[in-house]
Amino acid sequence: MSWTRRHLLDLQSLSAAELTTVLDTARAFRAIGERSIKKVPALRGKTVVNLFVEPSTRTRISFELAALRLSADVINFTAESSSLKKGESLKDTVRNLEALNADFIILRHGASGAPQFLSQFAHAHVVNAGDGAHEHPTQGLLDVFTIRERRGRIEGLNVTILGDILYSRVARSNIWALATLGANVTLCGPSTLVPKVFESLHPRIRVTWDLEEGLRGADVVNLLRIQHERQRISAFPSVGEYASLFGLTPSRMATLSPDVIIMHPGPINRGVEIASEIADGVQSVILEQVTNGLAVRMAVLFLLNGGRQGELAA
Amino acid sequence: MSWTRRHLLDLQSLSAAELTTVLDTARAFRAIGERSIKKVPALRGKTVVNLFVEPSTRTRISFELAALRLSADVINFTAESSSLKKGESLKDTVRNLEALNADFIILRHGASGAPQFLSQFAHAHVVNAGDGAHEHPTQGLLDVFTIRERRGRIEGLNVTILGDILYSRVARSNIWALATLGANVTLCGPSTLVPKVFESLHPRIRVTWDLEEGLRGADVVNLLRIQHERQRISAFPSVGEYASLFGLTPSRMATLSPDVIIMHPGPINRGVEIASEIADGVQSVILEQVTNGLAVRMAVLFLLNGGRQGELAA
Amino acid sequence: MSWTRRHLLDLQSLSAAELTTVLDTARAFRAIGERSIKKVPALRGKTVVNLFVEPSTRTRISFELAALRLSADVINFTAESSSLKKGESLKDTVRNLEALNADFIILRHGASGAPQFLSQFAHAHVVNAGDGAHEHPTQGLLDVFTIRERRGRIEGLNVTILGDILYSRVARSNIWALATLGANVTLCGPSTLVPKVFESLHPRIRVTWDLEEGLRGADVVNLLRIQHERQRISAFPSVGEYASLFGLTPSRMATLSPDVIIMHPGPINRGVEIASEIADGVQSVILEQVTNGLAVRMAVLFLLNGGRQGELAA
Repeated sequence: MSWTRRHLLDLQSLSAAELTTVLDTARAFRAIGERSIKKVPALRGKTVVNLFVEPSTRTRISFELAALRLSADVINFTAESSSLKKGESLKDTVRNLEALNADFIILRHGASGAPQFLSQFAHAHVVNAGDGAHEHPTQGLLDVFTIRERRGRIEGLNVTILGDILYSRVARSNIWALATLGANVTLCGPSTLVPKVFESLHPRIRVTWDLEEGLRGADVVNLLRIQHERQRISAFPSVGEYASLFGLTPSRMATLSPDVIIMHPGPINRGVEIASEIADGVQSVILEQVTNGLAVRMAVLFLLNGGRQGELAA
Repeated sequence: MSWTRRHLLDLQSLSAAELTTVLDTARAFRAIGERSIKKVPALRGKTVVNLFVEPSTRTRISFELAALRLSADVINFTAESSSLKKGESLKDTVRNLEALNADFIILRHGASGAPQFLSQFAHAHVVNAGDGAHEHPTQGLLDVFTIRERRGRIEGLNVTILGDILYSRVARSNIWALATLGANVTLCGPSTLVPKVFESLHPRIRVTWDLEEGLRGADVVNLLRIQHERQRISAFPSVGEYASLFGLTPSRMATLSPDVIIMHPGPINRGVEIASEIADGVQSVILEQVTNGLAVRMAVLFLLNGGRQGELAA
Repeated sequence: MSWTRRHLLDLQSLSAAELTTVLDTARAFRAIGERSIKKVPALRGKTVVNLFVEPSTRTRISFELAALRLSADVINFTAESSSLKKGESLKDTVRNLEALNADFIILRHGASGAPQFLSQFAHAHVVNAGDGAHEHPTQGLLDVFTIRERRGRIEGLNVTILGDILYSRVARSNIWALATLGANVTLCGPSTLVPKVFESLHPRIRVTWDLEEGLRGADVVNLLRIQHERQRISAFPSVGEYASLFGLTPSRMATLSPDVIIMHPGPINRGVEIASEIADGVQSVILEQVTNGLAVRMAVLFLLNGGRQGELAA
């Protein structure tokens, strides 16, 4: 299956075949990351701009390394001290970057739909690195990739996503990729953060506010970060209360299947959504997710650039 | 014509032949920017330091990309969190960078004359990336390059520069390059921002505070940014007043020659110094200026490094 | 003598043979820095992360250039706007960087022992770029390298370190390297900043609070920075008082041997710990220290990566 898209804006619109193309290509790049010399010349002479209007060191570094290992030139552009602060519109900023012959714009933005908006006029390839509460497609891809590497397949697996679903772009991207690839998705958390209406997104999705029910039969548990540094008023009474009601504790872990895998997009809050010993335990794949994120982002840049998986065979 | 200068400090001291050498070299680099692989090895193993004591994301990125495409290593050094904050003098900072074998120092500084001062002791090549209200030579070069590409020549053209001339280093660099290459330069704006004394700089310069007169017969209109985020007290009553008296509106545009070109160094204030439809119209070359800026900066670094235009022929 | 360490955490634990291996390798890299093309491919395809939890532009740039000239990919990670601010532990941050296949972690941290802590679980090579008041080993190496280049040897030399010894990691790293290599070390400064207990560190160390006595017979004077931007309460009454009591003035300089060399880790406070004419004089090696710092850091990265000095012979 070949790839024909110019941009990666979301996972909702990707077919199962397209998702699979990315996952297969990422596997080839994962092997390259384990070599002593981790570079390939695929994007030599290309320019990748990390346009991060909302700060994120972690995702920015992952994209930066992905681009560097493909031999691209990388420019980091953050909103602070930039012309965006002088009142320039996002559209004008991006047109200026394109006038500098940028080949890729990696956009992190607080507004849902910003990458979609860009793609309507941009000549560069646009990659959504997280937009508002909409999607974070490369995170969804790396999560699905990690599950497939560990469990051998996606279809038919029971995946529970636990936490702040309502405002989570990570949850949305996971939901679309998992449902398209045939997993059964359970969304679980406080009723204030997990609205019942999510069930109408796809027939493979169910919502429960009961943790015991949410964890029953899970092959994969994906924990979302509770963003207590900007805690939502009235979503739940306190971090401690959240931890006691929905945190993944050793006693709750004991009720799960011995081959369940535990995921988290990071950074983790030890003792809040996950107990420290679980985060560091053998069923945790949290650091594998980080490694796989690099491979997935290399695959995305490579495919958008017109690369074909066969070219990596050597 | 060969290039013999070690530094690029201003355009005032450049001869017509030197200006033409940069423009001709920039044309070769512009062609390289349109190739799929945009890199040349001319500065491989050289170190370029962007020393930006005054912030400017846009100019910094243009220089950074220019250096990367010439295969140089680039270091970004901003005043924040640097030893300049600990009371170290600019001279000591630069001597330290030179001790790290920096080959080029690209200096943006709030004080007029700072690059000139550096050049008196520096072993590295010094490039002025904007100093106070003095000059911004690469901006002047890219403006002149853009005019020549569009109109085929500079000599005999009528160029109107409109806006805050008094404090503008962009205006000064344009004035010197245009006058040296034989254009007729009209400076126009509120009397508080366009002093009559500018006419004494060069016989090809005239000043007018009347917009209608300023635009009459113009082949090129170069609009300067009104810096309303740090508005000058008493220069003019309000941004709205400026827009109504000196903004380039569709009705004023209609009085201009159909082949006039409209320039702006960016970032633009839509609806203040320029109407949105003019900025996006067919006569606007604002984004070409950005593209040309990259080519001009590559040309400057290349020439200062001792490069000869013929070497780029292949 | 070959190098077998995976990390560079301190100089206290290095043998004379190991110190000499670094110095000899640095000499080869210093020659490379004087070539027109300053790059070698030794670390091509390797990833170096500058993890600077405490800010330092100067040291960060030196490490960044060292890595770039070895052809590594470099990522700059500063604490501001990073996940460390969201409450992530240093351990989790570093594990994440390792999951991105970082080969080297260069750590600057306010807490003494942070690099040692990292080295207990890290797969990457850890280089201490300054930890609290503990050590700054590459600074100590570059100081010793500079002395050896200038004076031909270390053994038997009289080295006076003058200033804020108590809180100085630079002093500690110098002390260990100098004592191990056989120099006689005099620590001098106000009694509040130079505790007598330092004499118990090594038999070659003596402490004096009398400047005249401290300078007598010195072959090398290494001045430490008085950090007046965060002045220690009650350590000494004022910067002016420090300058008059312990500053290196021309009249004090006149009492020294004519072939003494004057060192300072920078940035210097002209007129405080050192008179301007001495800093710029022929006996000052302050800028050589900066140049040598680059060579020493290249040598450290090269050796930790398993490089052998003979490979650089060509």
